[in-house]
Parts: sequence; C-alpha cells; structure tokens
Amino acid sequence: MADALPVTFIAGKTGPWQIERITTVSGAGLLAAERLLVHEGADYTAPTVSPTEATSSPDWVLRGAVSNQRYTTAAELTRLNAQSPALGRPDATVASLIPITKSNEWWELAQDERRAIFEETSHHIRRSMDYLPAVARRLHHCRDLGGPFDFLTWFEFAPINAAAFDDLLAELRGTTEWTFVEREVEVRVTRGPR
Amino acid sequence: MADALPVTFIAGKTGPWQIERITTVSGAGLLAAERLLVHEGADYTAPTVSPTEATSSPDWVLRGAVSNQRYTTAAELTRLNAQSPALGRPDATVASLIPITKSNEWWELAQDERRAIFEETSHHIRRSMDYLPAVARRLHHCRDLGGPFDFLTWFEFAPINAAAFDDLLAELRGTTEWTFVEREVEVRVTRGPR
Repeated sequence: MADALPVTFIAGKTGPWQIERITTVSGAGLLAAERLLVHEGADYTAPTVSPTEATSSPDWVLRGAVSNQRYTTAAELTRLNAQSPALGRPDATVASLIPITKSNEWWELAQDERRAIFEETSHHIRRSMDYLPAVARRLHHCRDLGGPFDFLTWFEFAPINAAAFDDLLAELRGTTEWTFVEREVEVRVTRGPR
Repeated sequence: MADALPVTFIAGKTGPWQIERITTVSGAGLLAAERLLVHEGADYTAPTVSPTEATSSPDWVLRGAVSNQRYTTAAELTRLNAQSPALGRPDATVASLIPITKSNEWWELAQDERRAIFEETSHHIRRSMDYLPAVARRLHHCRDLGGPFDFLTWFEFAPINAAAFDDLLAELRGTTEWTFVEREVEVRVTRGPR
C-alpha cells in the first residue's frame, strides 16, 4: 500500500447499500439510517442542509484510513495476501461495517503486550484466516483522527456465508482481546437498487 | 495515555518559539517563517485572511496526534518512562521539530520487519535512551491524517545539550532505518519573548 487511503462511511438516504439492521454490541449505538455510501478519497464533505432539503443531511458519518499493518508479521501477511479476496465481488452482496473502540487500558499497553493478546492469546488472525476467501475484509484506522471509534472494519460476503460470518464474530467476541472493546456496533447491509 | 491528543504546529508571525533555522535534510523543505506556536487540542483552525490582515495567515500548519506506541516493548517502555522528562522544563529553551516521511517500501513491510529494522538493526530506542533525561521528546503520528508527513517529532533541551542533540540526529541518520526516510526537515527554535 502506498499512502494511507481515506475512506468515509456515510449513512443517510442515499448509497448503494441498504441498511438491514444496526446492532449495538457494547457502549453507545448509532442512529438508524436507510442507506450506506462508502466514499474513497479525501474530498468527502457533508452536504449543506437547507430547511427545504433536510433529507440530504446524513444520519452519521464515520471516517477512517486504510493504513499500514500494526500487528501482522511477514509470515502471516504472506498467507493473508495469498488468500484474501478483493472487495467488490459480484456475489458478495452482503456487507458488515463494525466500528470498534478499545479501552484506554488497551492503548496504554506496549506493542508486544498488545500483539501477544491480539494473536498469541486471542488468535485474531488465525481465526479470521479460517473464513478466507469467503469473507473479504478491509480495516480502517481512525484513532489518530480523533473520531468516536478506533477502527472501522468492513466485511463483504455472499448471503450463503452470512451464518459463517456470524460465527466468526461470536468467536472473536469471546476472546481476551475483546475484553478491551468498550464500544462496538454492527451495521449489516445488503447491496440493492434504490 | 488516554485518547489520542491532537497537536497542531503553526508557523507564522506569532507563538512563543522563535524559528532559528529550517534545514532541509531530504526531500522538499518547508517555507521560512518567524515564529512557531504549538497548539494542543482539536479546535485549531487557520485564521481567515482579509486583504488588510495578510500577516495573520500562517506560513505553514502541520497536524499530528500523540497516539499509542507502535514498536516499543513493555521492557523498553518501563525504562523510557523512568528516564523521560516532561516537556516544558524551564531550562529547556531550545526545541527541534522534525517532520519525517518514510517511503512506501517502509510502510509495505510487515510489523515484525519494521520493528527489526527500527530497533534490532538501527537501535532507535537504545540510541535515544543515551540522551535521556537531557532531551525531552514527544512523537506525533500523522500518516493516517493524510498530511504531507508521517511523523512530527518534538524535542526540547537546554542550550548546553544542543551539540549532543545534533550528535543523536547524526547517529540516527546513519542507520538502516533512515534509508527509508524520503523527506526530513528540521525546524530549530528557541523560546523567547516576542
């Protein structure tokens, strides 16, 4: 990857993804909305709202950046790259946006302590790898951007793999790593014409 | 550290730090300016320039965030915390802002590969530790923010330690890690009344 890629998730009345449900897993939730738009690049600005065009205002906007790996080793990266599908597969008509905030306790840990919990204890990469290539994934970092979340993870898969994806989420939520998650919301969407 | 702390460095006509020199080490430099202001918190916005107040416009503005450690181990962090002085010591009247951009080749490396170059090969932490507590240091991350630099490092020291600080910079610039640095500027400032 070259420069960090800014990505903005805009929930409102427009966008190619229909929001099926927004589930609050822990902490504060997110407002209900109809559609989700994923904007790549730095130039997204929220529309100006006039009294007669109130519907053009998004319900919420979350920003992140596709950035460098923080925990993945070279050996893991080789295996991940070999098995990870691209976003935008025609049959991947279901997607999930999972914004997460971890606790101050997590962020105060040193790099080796976080890595040990992340993989050696909680097997975040190994567990996720079991769901490749069915589930495409892209991680967006936002802690340094000062927003309400630390990460926005975006997953895409075919409807037939939705149950398996739910199993992955349940597995991860049972790990030691997840004891440091203090806010988590799942936004489940399907691709469909407006 | 709790949430990432946004910090803005504003070069222009005002601020407690007088800019002594701006040295381009590699890549593109920065515009000359008289004074430097360090603003902590998210609410800095560049002043609106009117034709009669052109001097109020900053020469340049760089933003970063004090964020979590990316390479430091728990053992290293314990030693660093024990020896690292706070910013703002009365006798630390010299400071240096060093904005750096690393190459795509660096950012495409896996975490363990970057860590190995950073410390096991280049001894970034060990070398820096030799200059504690003389040199106070704070690192600001900005790669995910989309600005022109990846890091802004701020150092503060007494005038008597300026030569030692220059030795540290020369040492670091000779390491393997620095072969991945494609842009580096040093802004040397002294604290003085305006």
